[in-house]
Amino acid sequence: MPARDMEDVTVGLVGLGTVGTGVAKLLTEHADRIARRAGKRVRWKWAAVRDPRKARDVSLDGVRVTTDPMEVARDPEVSILVETMGGIDQAAEVVLAALDSGKHVVTANKAMLAERGREVFDRARRAHRAVAFEASVGGGIPIVQAIGVSLAANQVQGLAAILNGTCNFILTKMTMEGLPYAEALAQAQSLGYAEADPTLDVDGTDTAHKLVVLAQLAFGANVVTSDIRRRGIDRLDLADLTYAGELGYAVKLLAVARLSEEGLDLRVAPTLVKKGTPLAEVRGPYNAVRVVGDAVGDVFFYGRGAGMMATASAVVGDLIDVVTGRALITSRVLNPWGDADHPVARTPSNRLRRRYYLRFHIADRPGVIAALTQVLGAHGISIASVIQHDSGDDAPADSPVPLVIMTHLAVEFEVEAALKEIDRLDVSHAPSVLLAVED
Amino acid sequence: MPARDMEDVTVGLVGLGTVGTGVAKLLTEHADRIARRAGKRVRWKWAAVRDPRKARDVSLDGVRVTTDPMEVARDPEVSILVETMGGIDQAAEVVLAALDSGKHVVTANKAMLAERGREVFDRARRAHRAVAFEASVGGGIPIVQAIGVSLAANQVQGLAAILNGTCNFILTKMTMEGLPYAEALAQAQSLGYAEADPTLDVDGTDTAHKLVVLAQLAFGANVVTSDIRRRGIDRLDLADLTYAGELGYAVKLLAVARLSEEGLDLRVAPTLVKKGTPLAEVRGPYNAVRVVGDAVGDVFFYGRGAGMMATASAVVGDLIDVVTGRALITSRVLNPWGDADHPVARTPSNRLRRRYYLRFHIADRPGVIAALTQVLGAHGISIASVIQHDSGDDAPADSPVPLVIMTHLAVEFEVEAALKEIDRLDVSHAPSVLLAVED
Repeated sequence: MPARDMEDVTVGLVGLGTVGTGVAKLLTEHADRIARRAGKRVRWKWAAVRDPRKARDVSLDGVRVTTDPMEVARDPEVSILVETMGGIDQAAEVVLAALDSGKHVVTANKAMLAERGREVFDRARRAHRAVAFEASVGGGIPIVQAIGVSLAANQVQGLAAILNGTCNFILTKMTMEGLPYAEALAQAQSLGYAEADPTLDVDGTDTAHKLVVLAQLAFGANVVTSDIRRRGIDRLDLADLTYAGELGYAVKLLAVARLSEEGLDLRVAPTLVKKGTPLAEVRGPYNAVRVVGDAVGDVFFYGRGAGMMATASAVVGDLIDVVTGRALITSRVLNPWGDADHPVARTPSNRLRRRYYLRFHIADRPGVIAALTQVLGAHGISIASVIQHDSGDDAPADSPVPLVIMTHLAVEFEVEAALKEIDRLDVSHAPSVLLAVED
Repeated sequence: MPARDMEDVTVGLVGLGTVGTGVAKLLTEHADRIARRAGKRVRWKWAAVRDPRKARDVSLDGVRVTTDPMEVARDPEVSILVETMGGIDQAAEVVLAALDSGKHVVTANKAMLAERGREVFDRARRAHRAVAFEASVGGGIPIVQAIGVSLAANQVQGLAAILNGTCNFILTKMTMEGLPYAEALAQAQSLGYAEADPTLDVDGTDTAHKLVVLAQLAFGANVVTSDIRRRGIDRLDLADLTYAGELGYAVKLLAVARLSEEGLDLRVAPTLVKKGTPLAEVRGPYNAVRVVGDAVGDVFFYGRGAGMMATASAVVGDLIDVVTGRALITSRVLNPWGDADHPVARTPSNRLRRRYYLRFHIADRPGVIAALTQVLGAHGISIASVIQHDSGDDAPADSPVPLVIMTHLAVEFEVEAALKEIDRLDVSHAPSVLLAVED
C-alpha cells in the first residue's frame, strides 16, 4: 500500500545529541522507507532538548521543541517515546512516566537499563507496553535481537565482547603505533572517539553496563553493575601489550560471561585474545560480540559500536519493531529483568580456571626465578611459556628486569594468592601484573 | 508461568535427515526451554520420513511416523509444518498444501525458496500465514532476521558472503596445505563436509540459491537463480590461489550483491579478498556475511553455516518466532517476494567497475608483455601490480610462463573484451584467468 494512505503513529524524541540527531535524520530523510517497513507512517511530534536555541544538523520543521522531557512523556497523543537523552535517573523517570501514560519506549540507554532495568521492565509488563533496547549494546550490531529472538532455541553458554569503541580505538593505537596510554587517549579525544572526561569509558563502567544488559538477556541473571568484576584500560602498561604481542596475543577490553555448572562468571577486563581469531582482529572504534550457544556453537557479530547513524539504525529498527507489534510480543515473552526461572549463582573464584599472563619485575640475580616459580608451583600453577629478555651487559648488576609468564589453566584464586606472595618477596619490585587469557 | 500449565501448539516435521534430526533433538531434549521462550508447549506430532525402518539418532516415542508428507500437511490438528526435506518441487507442494490448510511454515529450504519463493509467499499472504526461513541461509547465523527485521531502518547497499561451507573448506585446504582442487575435495568428502555428488555445492548453485533469498530480503529484487552470474570453484587452479596469496589476497567463493545508481549487480564467483579483512579470515566450513547498510555501515556476521545443530538452532528459533506470533507480523510487513515497490534493474556490464586479477600464460620472449599491456591499455585497463617469476635459465627458450596482473578499477565489459583479444594472440597459450577483487 502506498505509504501516504497509511495510518499514522506519533513519536516523541527525548534527547537530541548525537544519537537523537541520527534518529531525527532517518525519520525525516527516509520517512517513506520507514513507513513501508513499519506499516504505518511515523509522525515525529516532539523533540525534547537541553538547549532549544542550539543550531541543529537536522530540520525541526513541524516538530514541537521542549526542554521538559516530561511534557513528551505525558502527551496522550504520543504512542512511542524514543529515549536518547542518556544519564540514569532522569531518563528512568521519563521512561517510567511514558509507560505509565501508555506509551511504548525505545531506548539506547545501557546505563539506565543496567541500573534501573528491573523497575522499567516491571512497569512495562504491568502497563502492557514494549521496551525495545537494541541500541543500548553494540551500536548498530543487532545483538539484542540475535540473543533475545534469533538464538532463542539455545542456552547461551558464553559471551565475549568488545563493547566500547573508545577503549578499542585506544588499544589499537597503543598496539599498532607503540603509543603509551596517555598519548593514545589524547589522539582518541582529538578525533572525537573519546570524550573530554573519558572516565566511564576507560575504567570499564560503560562496558560493564552493556554486559549487564547482555547477561540479563542471555541468562536472566538479575545482576547489577556492581556485581561485575571490572578493570579498565586506564592503568594498562604499553609493555604488557608488547609482551602479549610476542606471545601471539592482542590485548582487548573484553566483557566476558561464562556459564558453567559452577555458576555464572561475569567480568570486564583487559584480556589476552589469540591473534588471528575474530575478536583479536577487531580494530579501531568497532565493536564485536562472540556468542556461544549450546546448539548453534560460535556466532560472531561485528560492526560500528557507536556513532550517529549506526546507533540510530538500531533505534529506528526498534521503532519499526514497536510499530509492527513485534516488540510488544518480544517484551512479553522474553520478559527481561523478570523473575528468572533459574537465578544464576556466581562462580566461586576457587572454581574459575583460566590461563593467565603474569608480569613480574624482579631482581636480575641467581635464584630469583627459582624462588618465584616455587611460589607458583606451590599454588598449583604450571608455566606454559616465559619471556625474559637479556637486559644487556651494560645494565647495572641486580637491577630489576621484567619476567613474563604465560600459565597453563590455573585457578584464579590461587593465581591471585601466588601474586600477593610474590609481591612480598624482597626480590620483587613493583606490583605484578595479572591479565586473563580468553580462549 | 510454569511450562506445564501452558497451551499446546502442534507441530509436524517433514524430513528427518541431518537438519530434521537436529530439530527433533531440540524439541525432545529442550522442551521446557522452548515452551518458556515460545509461551506455549510444542507438541511434536508427526515425522514424515523416507524410510520408516531406518535407525534414528533421536527418540520417536509418541510421534506418528509417515512416509507421506501430505498426510502432515493436511492434518487439521497441526498448526505449524516444519519443512526440512530438501529438494524443490515436492517440498513446494507440501508447503503450499500446508499453507492452504491453514498452517504456518518453517523451512530451511533455500533451493525451494529460490525457485518457487514467489508462489509460496503469495499463497502465505492469501492464507494469512507465516513462512519463516532463517535456516535457509547461513545455517545458525541469524542473517535473515538481521536483514529483514533488525536492519529495517537501512537500505542495504551491498552484501558479500561466504555461504557454502563445503567450498570454503575446500578453498581453505587448498590455500593452507597447497592441495590441488581434486585432493581437497576428496578430503572434504571423507570428512563429511562434501557429499558424494558435490556438484550443487562446488558449481556455486547452492550459493546462488542463498543469494537469491538474501537479495529478495535486502532488495525485493524478484530474481531467480538463473539471473545470477555464477561460477563455482570446480575449475579453480591452485596456482591462482598461490599468486593471490603473494599479492596479499585470499580467494573465497563469494556471493556478492551491490546496489548502485546503475542498478543491482548479483554474482557468485571465486573472488579475491584482502587478507586481514574479516571475510578473508573465514576458514573451514564456516559461513560469513558482510552487510553494508546506508545508516549502519558495515556489519559482519560469522558462524557455522551448516551442520545438524547449528541449522536446527535457526529452525527452532523460527518455530518459536511463529508460535509467539512475531513471524506472522514479519511475513506480512516484510512481504518478501511480494510486488517490490521499486523493482531493481540489473547493472549493465559496461557500468560495472571493479579491480581484477588476471593470469595469462604467455611465451617468454621479448615484446610479449608489451603486446599484452597494449591490448589492456586500449581497453582503458591500467595495471596496479604484476607478478612474473623468473622461469630459470634451464627452461626451454620460448616456453610459456605465467604472468599475473592486478588491475586498477576497470570496466568489466572492457576487461572481458581485452581477455578475448589477448587469448587470440599467438603469444598467448591456454585461456586467461579472470577473477574479481572484492574491496
